[in-house]
Amino acid sequence: MKPSIFFNAHHSPVGSFATFTLGSKGPRGGLGLELTGPANESVFVGAEDLNEPNLFRALPFYGGSENQAADYDVENLNEVHTEGKLIPFADDQITREFGAGIDEWKAGDLTLRIVSPPKSVPNPDETDVKDEVTPGVIVELTLDNSLGKRARKAFFGYGGSDRSVGMRILDSHGLTGVGQGNTTAIACADPDVYAGLAWQPEVILCPKYQENLAFMLGSIGLLVGTVEPGEVRTFTFAVCFFREGQATTGIATRYLYRRWFNSLEEVASHTLRLATKNKQLAEEFDANIKAQLSPERAFMVSHAIKSYFGATQLLEREDHKPLWVVHEGEYRMMNTFDLTIDQTFFELRLNPWTVKNVLDLFVEKYSYEDRLRFPGDPTTYSGGISFTHDMGVSNAFSKQHYSAYEQVGLTGCFSYMSSEELMNWILTAGLYATHTNDTKWVKDNQEIFARCFASLQNRDNPDPNKRNGVMSLDGDRCLGGAEITTYDSLDESLGQARNNLYLAVKGWASYLTLEKTFASLGDTNAAMESRLQAERAAKTICDSADADGLLPAVIGEGFDARIIPAIEALVYPHYCGIDTAPYQPLIEVLKKHFKAVLKPGVCKFADGGWKLSSTSNNSWLSKIYLCQYVAENILGFPADSQADKAHEGWLLDEENSYYAWSDQMLSGKAVGSKYYPRGVTSILWLKEG
Amino acid sequence: MKPSIFFNAHHSPVGSFATFTLGSKGPRGGLGLELTGPANESVFVGAEDLNEPNLFRALPFYGGSENQAADYDVENLNEVHTEGKLIPFADDQITREFGAGIDEWKAGDLTLRIVSPPKSVPNPDETDVKDEVTPGVIVELTLDNSLGKRARKAFFGYGGSDRSVGMRILDSHGLTGVGQGNTTAIACADPDVYAGLAWQPEVILCPKYQENLAFMLGSIGLLVGTVEPGEVRTFTFAVCFFREGQATTGIATRYLYRRWFNSLEEVASHTLRLATKNKQLAEEFDANIKAQLSPERAFMVSHAIKSYFGATQLLEREDHKPLWVVHEGEYRMMNTFDLTIDQTFFELRLNPWTVKNVLDLFVEKYSYEDRLRFPGDPTTYSGGISFTHDMGVSNAFSKQHYSAYEQVGLTGCFSYMSSEELMNWILTAGLYATHTNDTKWVKDNQEIFARCFASLQNRDNPDPNKRNGVMSLDGDRCLGGAEITTYDSLDESLGQARNNLYLAVKGWASYLTLEKTFASLGDTNAAMESRLQAERAAKTICDSADADGLLPAVIGEGFDARIIPAIEALVYPHYCGIDTAPYQPLIEVLKKHFKAVLKPGVCKFADGGWKLSSTSNNSWLSKIYLCQYVAENILGFPADSQADKAHEGWLLDEENSYYAWSDQMLSGKAVGSKYYPRGVTSILWLKEG
Repeated sequence: MKPSIFFNAHHSPVGSFATFTLGSKGPRGGLGLELTGPANESVFVGAEDLNEPNLFRALPFYGGSENQAADYDVENLNEVHTEGKLIPFADDQITREFGAGIDEWKAGDLTLRIVSPPKSVPNPDETDVKDEVTPGVIVELTLDNSLGKRARKAFFGYGGSDRSVGMRILDSHGLTGVGQGNTTAIACADPDVYAGLAWQPEVILCPKYQENLAFMLGSIGLLVGTVEPGEVRTFTFAVCFFREGQATTGIATRYLYRRWFNSLEEVASHTLRLATKNKQLAEEFDANIKAQLSPERAFMVSHAIKSYFGATQLLEREDHKPLWVVHEGEYRMMNTFDLTIDQTFFELRLNPWTVKNVLDLFVEKYSYEDRLRFPGDPTTYSGGISFTHDMGVSNAFSKQHYSAYEQVGLTGCFSYMSSEELMNWILTAGLYATHTNDTKWVKDNQEIFARCFASLQNRDNPDPNKRNGVMSLDGDRCLGGAEITTYDSLDESLGQARNNLYLAVKGWASYLTLEKTFASLGDTNAAMESRLQAERAAKTICDSADADGLLPAVIGEGFDARIIPAIEALVYPHYCGIDTAPYQPLIEVLKKHFKAVLKPGVCKFADGGWKLSSTSNNSWLSKIYLCQYVAENILGFPADSQADKAHEGWLLDEENSYYAWSDQMLSGKAVGSKYYPRGVTSILWLKEG
Repeated sequence: MKPSIFFNAHHSPVGSFATFTLGSKGPRGGLGLELTGPANESVFVGAEDLNEPNLFRALPFYGGSENQAADYDVENLNEVHTEGKLIPFADDQITREFGAGIDEWKAGDLTLRIVSPPKSVPNPDETDVKDEVTPGVIVELTLDNSLGKRARKAFFGYGGSDRSVGMRILDSHGLTGVGQGNTTAIACADPDVYAGLAWQPEVILCPKYQENLAFMLGSIGLLVGTVEPGEVRTFTFAVCFFREGQATTGIATRYLYRRWFNSLEEVASHTLRLATKNKQLAEEFDANIKAQLSPERAFMVSHAIKSYFGATQLLEREDHKPLWVVHEGEYRMMNTFDLTIDQTFFELRLNPWTVKNVLDLFVEKYSYEDRLRFPGDPTTYSGGISFTHDMGVSNAFSKQHYSAYEQVGLTGCFSYMSSEELMNWILTAGLYATHTNDTKWVKDNQEIFARCFASLQNRDNPDPNKRNGVMSLDGDRCLGGAEITTYDSLDESLGQARNNLYLAVKGWASYLTLEKTFASLGDTNAAMESRLQAERAAKTICDSADADGLLPAVIGEGFDARIIPAIEALVYPHYCGIDTAPYQPLIEVLKKHFKAVLKPGVCKFADGGWKLSSTSNNSWLSKIYLCQYVAENILGFPADSQADKAHEGWLLDEENSYYAWSDQMLSGKAVGSKYYPRGVTSILWLKEG
């Protein structure tokens, strides 16, 4: 069965934590600002029928309008009514061409084009980024009335869901628009388009009296234009977002776009000015993806990028320094570090400065020092620096040294991730340094690198002579619990940090990154010591292979689940241009392991999709994408196009597709990490540049 | 059956369009900011059991907590759990003593006291009103642990419903608090109270680890204090509201309290400072009501006042001039003029300057000039000034000269109210001038009074010789439709403006008010002409009586419904000290009419409640209160205590009581104008001062 085209996708400006979400049928998309999921608003896009006047057809993105007049007129005496009739296009009349930059819908002679190019944002400390961060999205609506014998109306509008304010008409700044308070609006600059508010779209489309179009009790607003017979006309709209005032607590910030914009109207005017430029950017972006990738991969990377941008938030602190946040999809945790590292591959292509920005804030406010414990033993040993899981949640920054997420006394979900977040800082810093060659930043952080190295070693063993390169102590912040990995909702195969195979390889990559960094800083001693730890890690991992060459998910603890992410961390030395020839045995072991586990019944689902762990049905697409890249580009396996089809199918599953791009798939059903930004690991499928 | 104590009531600071609503069972109250109804949040108020540790009992204002951890931990592997148990008090353990200033709940040895004194706000142009407009409410929680053998916990908190932000802990400014973003919070200054966030209250009440109390993913926040054995301890909390940035569109404003407050924390600190003063004010206010009124009336006036304050919004324009708004309950229309006039009796006792403020804004921005038409005839005649129905809706001011509500081409609900709003300006101005003796303002508005008079006369008849003192033309803004009255959802008996008995008497009162005003301005000519019109009106009304002395709802149009509000407008000359001796025949006719209609089958419901119109079951409490005042204080009828009991019963009906005070009762069921401010007409029951 062909998957449905009716899936939600984000259309988002950069850095405004805002999304025009559209695609699922019914009132399940709309203009969402800072939300955990779709705004669940009706969106009206349509046109008058070619042959029947006052009959309107719309794309099916709206819900049944109730008789809201009855709230006021309780005995139903009122006479507000209309001659018009609005019906949805039939499914088979509708087509969709979906790209990261342009999402185009066609129905009959109507074309809707949503233009939201993934944009690079230069460092706002160095450049005026007004055009890049303008919180608006361009929407083009074309009605081809070539065959029309009469003038026909085309329309676009929505019913806002902000509970604190009402709908209103925008009529200043040369604009005609409909909006809600100061937070969301749709506007255009065509002088002959009219705006109307009502409870039913038909009342605006066929106004008995023009005078009644400004009925402010109306819960929906439409913009309506007319296309003459024989004419093909395109209307250009700006879908706009705006948040005034303090944007976050914990750290006082405002949206950086507030440097240039004081109202929705100013946003709308400037968005419209960007229409041509944005469209060109969007077309180029989409053409590039299309040229390089299979349709399934082009779809997934485009969808993931759109979900990513909807989660971005570019703030400005009270000292006017920019602060970059990516919210964690439905969970809205801020700059979750184990997402940051995965998203770094994408950020480095678009906005490398944001990676530095986040790393610096982790050092400044979200690092801490701990001590360490062996499991079951209350004795504590020297630990060192680590970093929090996140920086807060839902626009509330957490307090210094603490995340929103981590709790003490646990061994599973919500426990600490000290070791993994420590590696995440080291590796993300390495990626950043390699990509940018920002030697000054590396030099400035020499002490942090040194502290990270000491801390990572201590987590191996307090006795240097007993170190095997693999983490075997838990931070004492766990209070006797156990550290977990980013795979927090999986079983021990990927969830337990201590002696975990996935984390062991990640530790090896961390030591290699440290070696390279120390060498670049001229600290040959530390470089040598780092190398020693990398070698120990490699040996430990290789030694853990069983007779068949398979690696256990947890080393030396008798937990023989099989995991794909054993190979994940190979990406780091590869990306950083580190010569791994000396570790060929490790790479061969991982390759053999991978080849052996990637089969049905072990690490493949029945549909051919990848199963990250043999003992869990919870598989994460972002990590699959990353491991696909490693398998193909480092280990030399061919692309698994059957898997790509399965993964695309998961996203387009009818139950899943409301949430746009989602990560955690339990046997193909999105069960967690929905509406999520992390899928941009797929950017690795595309050549740089 | 005794009515339930579990009804929602507002607890609101003045002018912050904010309410701590509490009383209905379940998660149906909470901290509402700018909403159409209750915030529908869980509120947790309770204490540890006297005998059983870790067993907690709470007032029943919360909902079943779901397993939100499952959103994160999709295979339910996590170990977050607790030993505590929270159960609601049984209904029969709970008592409530309800007043306008203090709403007190008792359950076992726990006492909850919500303190929100109705406060006068002096003119902010003349006085520092920081204390009056601080957007916080005091809540006291007392646990009497005299009999306790162990320390027991008491707690207060909520789960915020703002979708854009998460819950957070407040820990600056010497405060401990829980809040949501920058909009709502509960805070206290007791250094030994702790704050916690979680998904379940039990996790905060019995924390396995103190470290986990700051779990920011938690959807609820509690403040928890400890009371030692033998101790009686009262905790004082501030329930706070805050809205930064532009508060309204159409007219750019901010909340006036922003002059002094930049954060929730600042609001909380200052609210706590006001605790003693506020409590004293509240106690005095309640004692005064109790001393003067029957329990039913005391209940209704207290409840109405609380609903009124929840709808008030004191803003500041860009030129720093204050702007006073009362929102129309569930409809949130702003300064609906036909509510303003009814609420003026209350405003004049508390904040007379607000009446002037609103009247001035009607002149400045929400007045217009129209022409007039006889029904069914397109010829237009000179009209004159009138005023819009409202100034906008839901924080969006409407455009100059237009309301949010009024539409053209109608004869019922949503049509224009030009004549009645014109009378409303005249009468409200008269009430204001009488109460304040603000002769300067009257002088400044001499021209407006003159224009109002001309306009009102024109609405009678274009030919001065044919005038009968009663409105008989509709404004041409109706475009051939017909004007309505404030009773917009009733049938013609009260809904139609033209020749309406209710409006005829209101017109008579308007002419008398104009006569008095012109006389005070020394314009004897205009005064005489006004008097002439008053006499004509009185005659027309008297002449319309039928053989039994009953007056028709619509004069001369063969619509013989009977209406109580025939007597309503007698309140204006009475309040303004106008000698009505020359109109004794009119008053006698109205008295006779009233006496005749106030009986079952005509204008009484079976339960004894008043039925405003014999032909409609839709009866409005605010107007009943007003007519009760007129009947008792002007016409000399005794108080109808059976009716008071019925009216109280309507408000406490299980289906109605969620909406706090509501106005429109269809056979005793709240069907419209819910959560409404207009009930403060009942202030007339209380002696001034």
